[in-house]
Amino acid sequence: MSAEKDVTACILIIGNEILSGRTQDLNLAYIAKGLGEVGVTLKEARVIPDIEATIIAVVNELRAKYDYLFTTGGIGPTHDDITSECIAKAFGVPWTVHPDAHKHFLNFYAPGELNEARMRMAHTPEGATLVYNPVSRAPGFRMGNVYTFAGIPRVMQGMFDGIRGELKGGKPMQSRTVGTSLAEGVLAKGLGEIQSRYDDVEIGSYPIMRRGTFGVNLVLRGRDEARLAVAAKEVAAMVRALGDTPVEE
Amino acid sequence: MSAEKDVTACILIIGNEILSGRTQDLNLAYIAKGLGEVGVTLKEARVIPDIEATIIAVVNELRAKYDYLFTTGGIGPTHDDITSECIAKAFGVPWTVHPDAHKHFLNFYAPGELNEARMRMAHTPEGATLVYNPVSRAPGFRMGNVYTFAGIPRVMQGMFDGIRGELKGGKPMQSRTVGTSLAEGVLAKGLGEIQSRYDDVEIGSYPIMRRGTFGVNLVLRGRDEARLAVAAKEVAAMVRALGDTPVEE
Repeated sequence: MSAEKDVTACILIIGNEILSGRTQDLNLAYIAKGLGEVGVTLKEARVIPDIEATIIAVVNELRAKYDYLFTTGGIGPTHDDITSECIAKAFGVPWTVHPDAHKHFLNFYAPGELNEARMRMAHTPEGATLVYNPVSRAPGFRMGNVYTFAGIPRVMQGMFDGIRGELKGGKPMQSRTVGTSLAEGVLAKGLGEIQSRYDDVEIGSYPIMRRGTFGVNLVLRGRDEARLAVAAKEVAAMVRALGDTPVEE
Repeated sequence: MSAEKDVTACILIIGNEILSGRTQDLNLAYIAKGLGEVGVTLKEARVIPDIEATIIAVVNELRAKYDYLFTTGGIGPTHDDITSECIAKAFGVPWTVHPDAHKHFLNFYAPGELNEARMRMAHTPEGATLVYNPVSRAPGFRMGNVYTFAGIPRVMQGMFDGIRGELKGGKPMQSRTVGTSLAEGVLAKGLGEIQSRYDDVEIGSYPIMRRGTFGVNLVLRGRDEARLAVAAKEVAAMVRALGDTPVEE
């Protein structure tokens, strides 16, 4: 690995619907890709239920452990939307009306429509900065190194895209893929040897189903494009030496 | 919640390819649904990289915390497949050839094909029970309360389906869904009131995009079918009282 200190991140997915299997999470992969592009290394992701004590404890554990923490889910107006209040409790600050969110809501909702439930969405931990929601109403927010986003993928994506420019990462991660129809068991020895000579390139071997038969994607990731190119060339040469034609991406 | 003690579980997804966003995880939702059907409550899921010290520490933390721990990924023959060895280290036992896996491999591979890399897949933590792989070669295994599965969804599904009969859960979780096109902000008050009267039914409100506009799925989950039916009826009546026709599933 590079000598440069990694900028690290964790994603905390909050929601019973993910843990019940009812909803397929799509936010992890989206945020993960975006972080790679700005040179932030995603070190962990967690999924936890909508339980106050759990959310508070885990937010405090993870915001201390990583440079950035991103939470998704639980910022709507209903009784099960408790993320925002829990973040306030985790930071030990009051949960108060954010004046900008309030003003935005007063403009948007007709008189009488801005009920108590909707006003919940205008609350943030005191001192938070709003994160714009380009799709619906509830804003996200940043509190210290914690970004709190919606759970609905389209909304979360809009929020993340809005703030990614302010993330301070290192050199972006690059990747190369060498595809082959050789078996992993045939590739393993040579691949391990190449990996042992490149400590700044992370080489992963991922079997995939391709038209009903197994294939393997050999994925090289690293921050130095030149080193990556050389390592990918070695991997492709190894595949050729084993009698297959590599598919390079 | 029910007075009956929950049987709990955690899923540990091991793999850099999930944290890079390259691969979309599909295993969490599959295992989660299966656990619900056998009355095991999934309390947490984590995604961690292929780093030995991390895997060992997290496996030991989670196997102590939950009744069952399921891991996915990292049991193939290549250098980045380190899950099996790490589980052995987490349990403090040697990582040795499993005689049944060895016999199976000797039957399957032609003489000369069973190389060192493939023999890695015949190793398990000493004392582990094999979990059958109906798709490819590397077997999964059970060690104490930890089940170790492959990462490829089709393989993982086959392994999970093979062992789900041996899981000892409580009463299966049931669910009802009431769909509406009303806004969450309109539903929130009444929904919170219903939730406050049913502590054995978990009511979640999930906005969804439906033909370009927002709708909401009100999801009720619980173990007592009669209570669930009564609560769902109340939710549907509330939707009707607010002027919409509920869609009940």
